[in-house]
Order: sequence, then structure tokens, then C-alpha cells
Amino acid sequence: MSVTRMLETYPATINMDRKAIADTVEILLECSQACTACADACLSEQDVADLAKCIRTDLDCADICDTTARVLSRHTGYDANITRAQLQACAQACSACATECERHAGHHEHCRACAEVCRRCAEACRGLLAKMS
Amino acid sequence: MSVTRMLETYPATINMDRKAIADTVEILLECSQACTACADACLSEQDVADLAKCIRTDLDCADICDTTARVLSRHTGYDANITRAQLQACAQACSACATECERHAGHHEHCRACAEVCRRCAEACRGLLAKMS
Amino acid sequence: MSVTRMLETYPATINMDRKAIADTVEILLECSQACTACADACLSEQDVADLAKCIRTDLDCADICDTTARVLSRHTGYDANITRAQLQACAQACSACATECERHAGHHEHCRACAEVCRRCAEACRGLLAKMS
Amino acid sequence: MSVTRMLETYPATINMDRKAIADTVEILLECSQACTACADACLSEQDVADLAKCIRTDLDCADICDTTARVLSRHTGYDANITRAQLQACAQACSACATECERHAGHHEHCRACAEVCRRCAEACRGLLAKMS
Repeated sequence: MSVTRMLETYPATINMDRKAIADTVEILLECSQACTACADACLSEQDVADLAKCIRTDLDCADICDTTARVLSRHTGYDANITRAQLQACAQACSACATECERHAGHHEHCRACAEVCRRCAEACRGLLAKMS
Repeated sequence: MSVTRMLETYPATINMDRKAIADTVEILLECSQACTACADACLSEQDVADLAKCIRTDLDCADICDTTARVLSRHTGYDANITRAQLQACAQACSACATECERHAGHHEHCRACAEVCRRCAEACRGLLAKMS
Repeated sequence: MSVTRMLETYPATINMDRKAIADTVEILLECSQACTACADACLSEQDVADLAKCIRTDLDCADICDTTARVLSRHTGYDANITRAQLQACAQACSACATECERHAGHHEHCRACAEVCRRCAEACRGLLAKMS
Repeated sequence: MSVTRMLETYPATINMDRKAIADTVEILLECSQACTACADACLSEQDVADLAKCIRTDLDCADICDTTARVLSRHTGYDANITRAQLQACAQACSACATECERHAGHHEHCRACAEVCRRCAEACRGLLAKMS
């Protein structure tokens, strides 16, 4: 992934820990993709009716992770209040999605895999929030 | 806009004020588009170097409004904590973008127009948050 | 909607019919939202298992319409080849989504409503493509 | 990245080469992020006025890559015509963005890095298209 290289070539000052930003952006991209894939895999399961809430939470989490990755990929005209609020929304969505996917992890490997990524992503968002305060 | 018709044809219960949801989704779509267009218009201004923070805030606001509109367009498996956190991030981004665009409203009509939409969108998000509590 | 106002305040030349662009952007935003809402409504139907392809096509169509609306909202550094290719992908997605939603229009009002918006959006994309050549 | 694991846990048939899909999704995510970061880095350069077209093309490419990654992450209700058209739009955007970034690669390391990722992404999209026909 070129996330670190893009950060290193940014021409001005960055008011955050570059390593923590890069790690968080990478897990956000991974989490968004895993949620999109998990929602789609759920649609092909025979018990799809039992997975409606899982699919919906996956879709929210995918959108929120994508947007958070973009906010963290920008450093010009930095506004800590926007970054902080979006990270909080993302930590909330990832935690909720992890919990919902874990309910189905015994039956569906894609839910188990997605739950693990969501859990790590929620931790990364909370870790970055802690470094900001 | 078919936002209201889509809400009316939703086959299950919605735990929020449908009219307030529809109004908020419509202004979110409008705000996202205005921010994308304002960022692009700024890029064609001779004083683009003075507009760097405006462009960046426009881009954040566009992404955050898009995602918030999607979260509010889903009702299955509703999670109030996700909706609330994303609305808070959106109100923050729209307020910040309105303030930044207002700084350039005297010189650039697109900034004036965008600031007005952002201000209304921030109010809509805060109004919906107030109805949720 | 402020789409027309944003176009009118763009400070440089636009190499396309502004009225046609504004109309297409507006129907793209409407179509993206309708597809997101239709996918969510399908998730709450008892026959969700029969709606899996409809949900998936809705999700693709929502993403593709969003991206196409953004491409059409930018005029700086215009590249006709990108705009044309994205409009073609969007016309394809909207036509396919209209056809799939029409299959369920007799049972589900949200599919009927979404099909109508998708059909109009496909026509708008094809109309704009015709004006470009 | 969990892209391959998500593909392996998909519960139904996939009508495409799974390895080629996974490789393409990974480079699409990388390219979208690189383009978002390059646009932002350009905004902080002193010669930002000379980079307006580069920023715009970066923004289009980021949106188009994100959407294409999502389309390729779904396999339920597969429609080859949508996938093909979106891949063609993406190959077009990535090639154009690579060419534009290369023009600035001598002055800006972020443009050099972004151009390399865009070039690889365009090739991945074309390679997947070739496997589909």
C-alpha cells in the first residue's frame, strides 16, 4: 500500500502522528471493503432473512469507513473538530458492526472475518482519537 | 425528488419522524453536490491559493453529507447510536464549511451559495438530532 | 435544489449544455437515493431471498450514480473521455436496475418507484451522451 | 488485506478469476487513496494554480476507483455488462490521471507516486476486462 509514501510526500506540516494516520487509513480501507463483501455474501446465504440487520450495518459501516479514510487522507486546512467527530462516528459504526457480525460468526465465515476487521478498525479509530486529545 | 415516496413505501416501522428524515436527506444531497461544485469552482479561480482550506473543507463536507444521507435512507436494523454519531459529525462539517465559505462569499458567488446550503444543512442535522433525544 | 445556481456561478467556460448537465445531476442524486432506499426496503420484505439480485443491483446503481453526479459536477480540467465512459457505465447500471426492479413492481411499491427513477436516469445519461458526440 | 479472505468465504459461485478480482480490488483501493492524498498535497503546493487539472482528475479518479472496487466486491446477482462498463470507465480515468500526474512528477513526489499507482491500476482494470471477454 502506498498510504505511507503519500504521507511522506505531503509538502507541508501534519499535526498528527503520521504512522498512526497511515495505520488507521489502511485498516479503514480494509474494513470498508470487508463490510461491502460481507453484505454481499449475506445476500447469497439461505438464511438471508436472519441477516437483514447484519447487511444494513455492513452497508453503513462501509460508507462511514470510506468517508473517514478520505478525511484522514487530507491534511491541508486541517480542522480537528471534523476529524474527531468523524472518527467517533466511525468507531461507533465499527463496534456495532463487529458485534452484529459476531452474532453470525459461528455460521458464516465471512461474518467472522468481517467482525475481526471491524474490531481492529474500531480500536484504530479510538487509538487515533486518544492521540488527538 | 422521490425521497418522500421511497419513505412512504418502506414496508416496516420507522422509529423517527418521516417528514424530518425526508427533509434532511434532501438537504444533505443538495449540500453534498454544492460542496463538490464549490470545490471545483474554487479550482478555477485566480486566487485558488487563498482557497485551499475552502476546497479541502468542501471535499470533507461532500463526503460526510453523502454518507449521512445514506445512513438516513436506511431503516432496517436501525441503530440510533450510529445515526446520532454520524449526524453529529455532519453538523460539525456543515457548520465548519459554512463558516469557511462565508469568508469568501464577498468575492465568489459559488462560496456564497454553498455557505447558505451548508448552513441550512447543519440546522437540519441538529434539528433531527433534537427530535431523536 | 441549488444545482443550477452552482453551475451559474462557475467562473470559467463549460463545454457542455448547462441545462442538460443540471437536469442530469439532479436525476442522478434522486436515483442514487432511491436505489439506497429500495435496497433497504427489500431487506425488510418477507420475500427478501427473492430480492437478492434486486438489492445487489440497487447497491451498484447507487454507487455508480453518486460517482457520475460528482464527475458531472466538476468542470475544471474537463476530460470528455472520462465523462463519456462514466456516463455509459451509469446508463448501463440504471437500465439494468430499472429492469430488475420492474420484475418486482407488482409486489413492492418501492421497486415500482425505484424502477421509474432508474428509467428516467438512464434516459438522462443517454441524452447527455448524445449531446456530447 | 482481507480482500482474498472475503472472496474465499463467499458462499456461492463466482464467475470470474478470484485471484484477478482480489488483485484488482486491492490496487483500486490503493489508487483511490493515493488520488485523494495527491489532490490534497497539490492544494498545499505553492504552484497550486498550475495543478488545477491534476487535482480535478485526482478527484474523479478517486471516486471512480472507489465505486469500481465496490462493484467488484459484489458477486450476488452478477451482471457482466455493469462490471465491464464500470471497469472501462475506471481504466479511462486511471490512464488519464497517470498521464496528468506524470506531467508534474519532476516537481512533486506525490504526483510521481500517484502516477505509478494509477498506471498499475489502469493495467489491472484492462487485465480483468481481457479475462472477461
